[in-house]
Order: sequence, then structure tokens, then C-alpha cells
Amino acid sequence: MRGTVLHGPRDIRFENRPEPKITRPTDAIISLSATCICGSDLWSYRGIESVDEPTPMGHEYCGIVEEVGKDVRNIKPGQFVVGSFATSDNTCVICRDGYQSSCLHREFMSEAQAPQLRVPLADGTLVATNDVPSKEFIPSLLATSDVLGTGWFAADAANVKPGSTVVVVGDGAVGLLAVLSAKQMGAERIVAMSRHPSRQKLAREFGATDIVTERGDKGVARIKELTKGIGADSVLECVGTQESMMQAIQSTRPGGYVSYVGVPHGVSLDGEQLFFAHVHLHGGPAPVRRYLPELIKLVLDGKINPGKVFDLTLPLDQVAEGYRAMDERRAIKTLLQPNAA
Amino acid sequence: MRGTVLHGPRDIRFENRPEPKITRPTDAIISLSATCICGSDLWSYRGIESVDEPTPMGHEYCGIVEEVGKDVRNIKPGQFVVGSFATSDNTCVICRDGYQSSCLHREFMSEAQAPQLRVPLADGTLVATNDVPSKEFIPSLLATSDVLGTGWFAADAANVKPGSTVVVVGDGAVGLLAVLSAKQMGAERIVAMSRHPSRQKLAREFGATDIVTERGDKGVARIKELTKGIGADSVLECVGTQESMMQAIQSTRPGGYVSYVGVPHGVSLDGEQLFFAHVHLHGGPAPVRRYLPELIKLVLDGKINPGKVFDLTLPLDQVAEGYRAMDERRAIKTLLQPNAA
Repeated sequence: MRGTVLHGPRDIRFENRPEPKITRPTDAIISLSATCICGSDLWSYRGIESVDEPTPMGHEYCGIVEEVGKDVRNIKPGQFVVGSFATSDNTCVICRDGYQSSCLHREFMSEAQAPQLRVPLADGTLVATNDVPSKEFIPSLLATSDVLGTGWFAADAANVKPGSTVVVVGDGAVGLLAVLSAKQMGAERIVAMSRHPSRQKLAREFGATDIVTERGDKGVARIKELTKGIGADSVLECVGTQESMMQAIQSTRPGGYVSYVGVPHGVSLDGEQLFFAHVHLHGGPAPVRRYLPELIKLVLDGKINPGKVFDLTLPLDQVAEGYRAMDERRAIKTLLQPNAA
Repeated sequence: MRGTVLHGPRDIRFENRPEPKITRPTDAIISLSATCICGSDLWSYRGIESVDEPTPMGHEYCGIVEEVGKDVRNIKPGQFVVGSFATSDNTCVICRDGYQSSCLHREFMSEAQAPQLRVPLADGTLVATNDVPSKEFIPSLLATSDVLGTGWFAADAANVKPGSTVVVVGDGAVGLLAVLSAKQMGAERIVAMSRHPSRQKLAREFGATDIVTERGDKGVARIKELTKGIGADSVLECVGTQESMMQAIQSTRPGGYVSYVGVPHGVSLDGEQLFFAHVHLHGGPAPVRRYLPELIKLVLDGKINPGKVFDLTLPLDQVAEGYRAMDERRAIKTLLQPNAA
């Protein structure tokens, strides 16, 4: 088969790759219904994270199970499944506590921008739907695999509750779905920080009540103005830079909650500043597996439509153009169709 | 009157000071039954925090109300009161949320190592007992004013619950009372990190089930050994250095809780390391006022005896010796008696 490989900064190739095979008895092989490009893929695409060798890409996936290893009990060939970007046995003490993305047997998925994929720990990683869903649900189901699950964790980790005043820092796909998540959790006021008209529009569609275009200290000042000088109850940091992290911490009320869900790049937090900010801070790789059953149900019940973040759809073999479009911010998020390739 | 003033590194003087007077209608003047020296006073005593001018010292206090301003409603002359090191109106939106130490009208107390003290925002800051307590309760009631309240916040902010496995980093008075607090909150296993026999003994008396003497990476490894390789549910950082903070974060299980309650000095947290640690982090100036009614009741009911952390009692005019004893770690914490002076 052919799959996506990063050879160096901005050098994405769709090239020959070995067919995935069952290598451990807990594996499954799936044929992807759809995959996509993540904001986090851009760190290495842009060379901010360097790659030492040609590196297969992709960690968001859903599709049909082709084959399972002999120890797989719950997942069966023919089922439609969604899995997280982090594999999990879903039975260890960390998983039982809801932190499947730090499972004792975790691996990070990294070869999903391809027509077929091996998924380790299939029973613990994958969630199957009752029936094979119709095509119009695919983008939203794919979104649950990471970008929605991550936005949902951002809202959950920042303690969003009915009536909360919430700020979302970052208008990428995760930030936009953090808005949707906060809305689902009952937030009363949701401020999206964005200066891009198309993203502002989608943020409003997902539930944002206010848009703030300022950044840094001016952004903080604007949030203080909107919250009677106090700061927001919950601030969801969905970027991962020093500026966005400090903006998030400073926009939060004392006793309030800050979450951060993108791998921080070059971020260093001053202990004393954090101390006097008096906030709760929680984040890390989103435990998407914890939320998948609920999120899949919300999608199939038609309650949410997170697939709207895909504003560009391409055949998988045009993956390089998908990266370019996101890098140049022409697209929020690119969906890739293996079957069109 | 005479009061305690820091003139420079290790230069504590007990010298003439103006009598405190009511300056705002919400003030109270109290005569101190006892005051004490805080571990945090040592930062400036040692010159790690520099003082630009002679600086009055002390922020822990309890005593008898002498006089109140005309707008004080609930606090009355003759009452015995305890207050927090941070003043609070106890009515603003931050106070109502339980974060009185970030009250919109907060001031930090700083002249309490003296026979008399002006307390701003008396109604919101002070808690009065029903009767004037007998002398044997004074050390423990004084402890509620900061050191116990701060240890209690450490346990609360780190989500200590019945059955929790808890690690306390730091064997100063706050750390020791964090052990006591974790015990009160029902922790099943409490690991005190200490290499001082007298402090280990008090930690065990307060409820520690294990003592770990190693520090840094070796300390982390020891905690992992004690917790089946997983890390503790709750780690209470009661020191404020880079080493202690990293030790705390690395000793915590993914999804677990880290609290920090001493002003961090020279601490910088790496965003990526924190991200993959997957912990909850919360801390700041302890909202002692939130806990005072409960803590005072526990003391007066004889349920806890936090006053045991005072292993040196001196007349107030010997305050300089009190600082020396703590600086040299000859004493855990020094209680000062104005009436013996």
C-alpha cells in the first residue's frame, strides 16, 4: 500500500509502505473510512520538532475491522470502530482512573494517514458502533478520535459546568471543538479568542457568545473587562506556546481553572507567577478513550456535528496539499479519503 | 511599643515601633496572646528575598480584641480571635468562592511579631471563639492562623480523600501539618519525606505511615517503589524550590494531584514535562480564612494538636534567637510570647 511519510521540513510524500500485519495477538487491522491531519502534525512538518529519519504520519482514524489477533475478544471483523491516538489496555490502574492516554501500556499511534492501519491493544483502544454508520457521520466520528476528544478534555479538565464563564485560547480545530464541548457542558458564556473571520463564524456556530481578537496582554485586559475585572472561571489553552499559556493563566480568576491540551513547545512557567495566579492547572494528552462512547453517541444521535471543522476534503494521495493548506492556514483541518485515492 | 524589624540579612531587631491605631473604620486592634516565626520569614532573613528598608515582620497571630473601627459589626472588644496572614472582606466574589487569600481587597499582614496589631477588614478577616480559650489551646489556635491552614490547603488542593496515598515533600512545620491534615481527611498511606529524626518522629505522631529520606531522583524512585511503580495519588509540595517541585510532580501518578503552598523561589516548570506528567496542579497562598472555623473547632474539641510544631517558646523580646534557631534548624518553629516580654 501507499502511506504518508514525512522526510523533512515541508517534505510530505505519499509512498510505498509495508502492508500492516497482526504482530501481536492483541492487535487489529482496520481499513480506514477516513483519516486526517492534526494541528500537532504541523510541529514536525514545519521543522519545529525535527525528525531524524523518514517518519510515517497520522494518528486519527476510524474504519472497518479487517482482522484481529487471537487474543482480541470484543472487537470483531466487519465492525466500524473509532480509536484514540493513544492506545490503552483500558484495564490498568491508570486506565480505570480515566487516564487511558497514560496507560501503563500506551503507545502513540503514528501511521494512520494510510488506507490500512494496525491498532495495538484493540480491545482497550477501539470502540465499535452497533451498526456501520452511514457516510454522512464519518467526518464527525473521525473527529471524536482526537480533535473533539481533546477539546472535550480541555473543557472537562478546566471544570466547565453549567453557568460557567469560559475562555478558549486558540482557534484551531481543537479550540473550536473546545467551544462546542463547553457549550455541551452548559457554559453560559464562551469567549473565543480568534482573529480569523471564518473561524470566528464556526466558533459562534459551535456556541461562542463573544469573540476577542486581541492577544497577549491586550487579550488578557479584554477578558478582564468582560468579566468585571475578575477573570474567567475556566480557560482552555489550545495552542501550546508561551504566549498562549501565559494569556490563559492571566485570564483566569483566582481559584479558577486552566487546562492545556496541546504539547507545549518552548513553554516555561514561572513558579511564583503561577502561585499568585492561584489557578488550578491540568492538562496533558487527552484521555480520549474515556470520552469515546459518550462522544460517539452524541454524534450518532445528531446532537453535535464536530465534523464541521473539516473545511477541506482531499483524496488521501493528495495529503501533501492537505498539509500545505493547513500550514498556510487556508484550511482549518483536512479530511483525507483513502477510498477516493 | 517594641516590635520585630528586619534590617538586612540575619539582622533582626526588637525595637521601638509606633502603637497600632485604627486607621480605617473596618480595622480592629488586637493584643496578641501569641505570635510566631514562619518558614517563609526565613527567605528574607537569609537574604534570598532582599529587603530594601527596615521591614516589620510577622503574619501569624491570635489574641484579644482591644478596639474596633466604627464599621466593624461582628468582632467586638474582649473577644478572642484568630485571623489569616491575608486579610479578606469575605464578601467579594473571590471570597465567596473560597479564595479569601486572593480577596479583591486583600492585604498581606506583616507586623504581627509585636504585642499589638492592627487587623484590616476585621469582620472578614478574623474569626472569634465563643469564649476566651484557656492557655493550653493557644499554641494550636495560633497554628490555625497560617501553618496549619496552609498544610490543610495543601491536602485539600491535592484532593486528599479517604483511602488516598499521599506524599508530603518537606518536613518543615507546614509539611508536618500537611501530614496531620491528610490524616484528618482520611488518607490511608502518608509518606513523609524527611531526613531529620525529630521531624520524622513528629510526622509519625501526626499520621505518617512511611518515611522516605532520599531526595531528588532517588526520592522519586523510592516513591515509585512504594506505589507499585505508579506514583502517589496526591503529592503535597511544602518547600518551594525547583528540586522539591520537580520531586513532587514526578512522584505523582498520571491523573493525580500536586499541590504547592510555599512561595516558589527560582522555580521554573517545563511545559512539556508537566504535560506528560499528566497531573493536576494547584496551589498559591492558602485561603486560611475558608478553613478557620473548622480548624478552630477541631482544636477546641481536642481532635488535633497542631501546636506541637512549636518546639521552641521564647519571650517576644528574644525574637532574634527564635530566627537563629530556625535558620540553623535547631527548631522546627518558634512561638513568641508577648506577655513574657
